[in-house]
Amino acid sequence: MHILIIGAAGMVGRKLANQLAKDGHLGGKVITKATLHDVVEPTAPVGAQFSSTLMASDFSLPGEAAKLVAGRPDVIFHLAAIVSGEAEQNFDLGYRINLHGTMELFAAIRAVGDGYRPRVVFTSSIAVYGAPFPDAIGDEFFTTPLTSYGTQKAIGELLLADYSRKGFFDGIGIRLPTICVRPGKPNKAASGFFSNIIREPLAGQEAVLPVSESVRHWHASPRSAVGFLMHAATLDLNLVGPRRNLAMPGLSVTVGEQIEALRKVAGEKVVARIRREPDPAIIKIVDGWATRLDAKRATSLGFKAETSFEEIIRVHIDDELGGKIA
Amino acid sequence: MHILIIGAAGMVGRKLANQLAKDGHLGGKVITKATLHDVVEPTAPVGAQFSSTLMASDFSLPGEAAKLVAGRPDVIFHLAAIVSGEAEQNFDLGYRINLHGTMELFAAIRAVGDGYRPRVVFTSSIAVYGAPFPDAIGDEFFTTPLTSYGTQKAIGELLLADYSRKGFFDGIGIRLPTICVRPGKPNKAASGFFSNIIREPLAGQEAVLPVSESVRHWHASPRSAVGFLMHAATLDLNLVGPRRNLAMPGLSVTVGEQIEALRKVAGEKVVARIRREPDPAIIKIVDGWATRLDAKRATSLGFKAETSFEEIIRVHIDDELGGKIA
Repeated sequence: MHILIIGAAGMVGRKLANQLAKDGHLGGKVITKATLHDVVEPTAPVGAQFSSTLMASDFSLPGEAAKLVAGRPDVIFHLAAIVSGEAEQNFDLGYRINLHGTMELFAAIRAVGDGYRPRVVFTSSIAVYGAPFPDAIGDEFFTTPLTSYGTQKAIGELLLADYSRKGFFDGIGIRLPTICVRPGKPNKAASGFFSNIIREPLAGQEAVLPVSESVRHWHASPRSAVGFLMHAATLDLNLVGPRRNLAMPGLSVTVGEQIEALRKVAGEKVVARIRREPDPAIIKIVDGWATRLDAKRATSLGFKAETSFEEIIRVHIDDELGGKIA
Repeated sequence: MHILIIGAAGMVGRKLANQLAKDGHLGGKVITKATLHDVVEPTAPVGAQFSSTLMASDFSLPGEAAKLVAGRPDVIFHLAAIVSGEAEQNFDLGYRINLHGTMELFAAIRAVGDGYRPRVVFTSSIAVYGAPFPDAIGDEFFTTPLTSYGTQKAIGELLLADYSRKGFFDGIGIRLPTICVRPGKPNKAASGFFSNIIREPLAGQEAVLPVSESVRHWHASPRSAVGFLMHAATLDLNLVGPRRNLAMPGLSVTVGEQIEALRKVAGEKVVARIRREPDPAIIKIVDGWATRLDAKRATSLGFKAETSFEEIIRVHIDDELGGKIA
């Protein structure tokens, strides 16, 4: 089995490649080859039994997507994206990568022809939704994004469903919750604080909380994100039918509940490292975000996420901190 | 005021141009100029007080959309499309015109710059929905099209909303019901019979009914379609907000109710010209179509359609047959 990961240098892409290397198989089939692609060259996963081909290019440029699928990968994970904040600031760049890149990829898969029909797993986002929302967003709620990023993801979903319906590939789109706790350095994404207020205090650093504790949001751990991707890659899509885009399960918690969970797991000394510093710009952005989903379909199809924020924190401590708190 | 109609040679485009010519103004402003565009050269509306520029081109080709908006029209009606059946048979053609053409147009409007911000009225369709449906499709029901045409329209809607949000133009998308009674010759569209079984008998001709009388569908007259377009062109979009795509009101009737209305308006002799000839292919297609919408938002915003099928038939007799039945 040959696997292609587009966006393999990103946080989720790296974790996915490492998990595949650790497992050595996917859906009962031995992985013989991985092609790892990003705009910068990804690193090969450690300890893999399969061979890894590393590629760097802008897949939105003419001819580049064809190179990615020329080796006829059996499973394609499409994780590449300009993130929300950057796509909002740079309209042309966001559309070029997130929309035209995806269109080029889908067209390139179709162009292979000759019975080639890979599984395509497309990472979408809860950014496809736009406020106002019902108490919980159901599986049949419409997509009225309030960002260019969300628009580009919603369009990718529509294309994925149509290409799948036409038999050009076998696609499934998964709407990821906000991934928390993101490892690494604090970044300037508007959603960054959801992770920062857990990760930094656990590492002995101060973190800034720019919104009120009453802010509610929809989370899953990086480990769950990798689990979603691998389940999507192996799921019987006859069970899914023509509605190929699924909201993933997650956990709806307030910032206050996040902090309370941190207190339980790591104690008051760690919680004291969170500094309140309200930021009206971030408050306004976060106000338009989904707070709670009712991901019935995905749950019934076997997708699983954490059920408490303490569990999400423990996943971070296990996977990123070697089990230790500063 | 300068008006551009793209798709001006089509049935609705011609009726719209004629109505604008008759009125001479739109939303209280005098129309001084109309640009009428299609892939074949449209005809100028009769009796217009404004000057009409007639253009024929493939607006999806590089540079062509820019020519359409170079004269900075104040209102742009975008009616151009490869119809559902053809877009399904010819995947590349449908995507080129319905998706890339629309993208080229939106990009060309943005590229004018210099404060140019026209009203853009985009004709979408109930084909953005895909079965299974609730009893009545509400304003927040999701778009999971089961045709490439529906996919292309749903994508156009998303782009329209994002370009409007970014201030590149002031757009509104309207999801038209099936237009009934369509004037002209019977065509091979799967939806053709909804009109054929009324139009042909009224003209003294036999018509074929390929589905059962229990089939329910969502209709509005050509006159209502023109009314929707003109209302969309003049509506205060602050009332609409960021959710710029609206399902239009219509009438939900069964084929049996259509026939009963025809009997009341035109008598048994006319109804007897309908011949039952079930067509499994058409039955299957129609089975996936929307049967009833609950178009609350559009109705509250002042969009109006017929409230009985007899009224729809009388509109046809008045507008197309000079009030006479064969």
